[in-house]
Amino acid sequence: MSRRGRFISLEGGEGAGKSTLLAGLHAHLMQQGVNLLQTREPGGTPLGEAIRSLVLDPAHAAIGAESELLLMFASRAQLVRERIVPALEAGQWVLCDRYVDASYAYQGGGRGQPIERIAQLEGWACDGVKPDLTLLLDLPVSTGRARAARRGAADRIETEADAFFERVRQTYRERAQAEPQRFRVIDASLPQDRVLKAAIAATAHLFEAG
Amino acid sequence: MSRRGRFISLEGGEGAGKSTLLAGLHAHLMQQGVNLLQTREPGGTPLGEAIRSLVLDPAHAAIGAESELLLMFASRAQLVRERIVPALEAGQWVLCDRYVDASYAYQGGGRGQPIERIAQLEGWACDGVKPDLTLLLDLPVSTGRARAARRGAADRIETEADAFFERVRQTYRERAQAEPQRFRVIDASLPQDRVLKAAIAATAHLFEAG
Repeated sequence: MSRRGRFISLEGGEGAGKSTLLAGLHAHLMQQGVNLLQTREPGGTPLGEAIRSLVLDPAHAAIGAESELLLMFASRAQLVRERIVPALEAGQWVLCDRYVDASYAYQGGGRGQPIERIAQLEGWACDGVKPDLTLLLDLPVSTGRARAARRGAADRIETEADAFFERVRQTYRERAQAEPQRFRVIDASLPQDRVLKAAIAATAHLFEAG
Repeated sequence: MSRRGRFISLEGGEGAGKSTLLAGLHAHLMQQGVNLLQTREPGGTPLGEAIRSLVLDPAHAAIGAESELLLMFASRAQLVRERIVPALEAGQWVLCDRYVDASYAYQGGGRGQPIERIAQLEGWACDGVKPDLTLLLDLPVSTGRARAARRGAADRIETEADAFFERVRQTYRERAQAEPQRFRVIDASLPQDRVLKAAIAATAHLFEAG
């Protein structure tokens, strides 16, 4: 019987450096001999990637907050059942670019969907699957947006106003404070190598027996 | 101020003759001078039609029951806000090919998603919008499936087993019994002209003042 794998989620606002950190963390975990599934939200399955195309498409400007929330959880329910649970049960580790905290931050904090509704959807969609570790790349909104702007065309959510992203950041920070055992907040204004070092240090306890 | 429009939904299993009845009912309502919006579920908006393509695509055989339920309500939330409410408020009538009863029948009865969950989603997604009249085309499953088979290629949901469609039919009939004021059950084994006549008779009270 293989030991159940570990589940790491990575969260953060626009321009926080998630992609760079994901690449570095992926390389580190592979070096440690971890059998790793790297995936993302929304997406990660054929259905999820189709949903991702819909919700991020600037042409779908009319998507209501209720529909956006339900689509994110439709993608998540599929990802949990089709990829995450089978991987963890097979002893693989899972590294996921955003997970359920993103719905609390974006659809809850950002769009004002009620927290109780999101919690209910989490209960239905996630099958009790929570990350063992959530890395939050925290950065002032203005800094993150200036970085993201250099990347080129914005997706539908990236075109929101600063106040939206301030609420997203605030919600992420509140969730990190409420669950200090699970979250590790990393100052994303630091140089990339120091961000990676902090992230690697945060994963150390996952290698312990248990 | 125009009077609020009326909302008619049409429900029924595979091969019950919904399309034929929709066409006949549409023609009748137009003759009566009704300003009519005819739409469908899943679908009816750019987002909803994209969701429809996803959930009915036989290639997405892996879609879980939770994701299917959430996708149906994502489409519905968008349709209610983008099309149905504005139409009714402008005095238009709405004729919709399937609405929320279909989720109770297919995702609830058919797939076994809990009724309380569907009721909760209805509360979030439908903004209190209920049909004034729901026409249920009722037919033995074997008769309906034989008719549907003649239409050609089956979509993802049409490929389910007979037991699935028996549960769908049973749930529809139970809902009709529980809300006799709103539902009119029509024997879909009758000739098309008699089905249409029954449907037209069922709409008569909608023209009364109120």
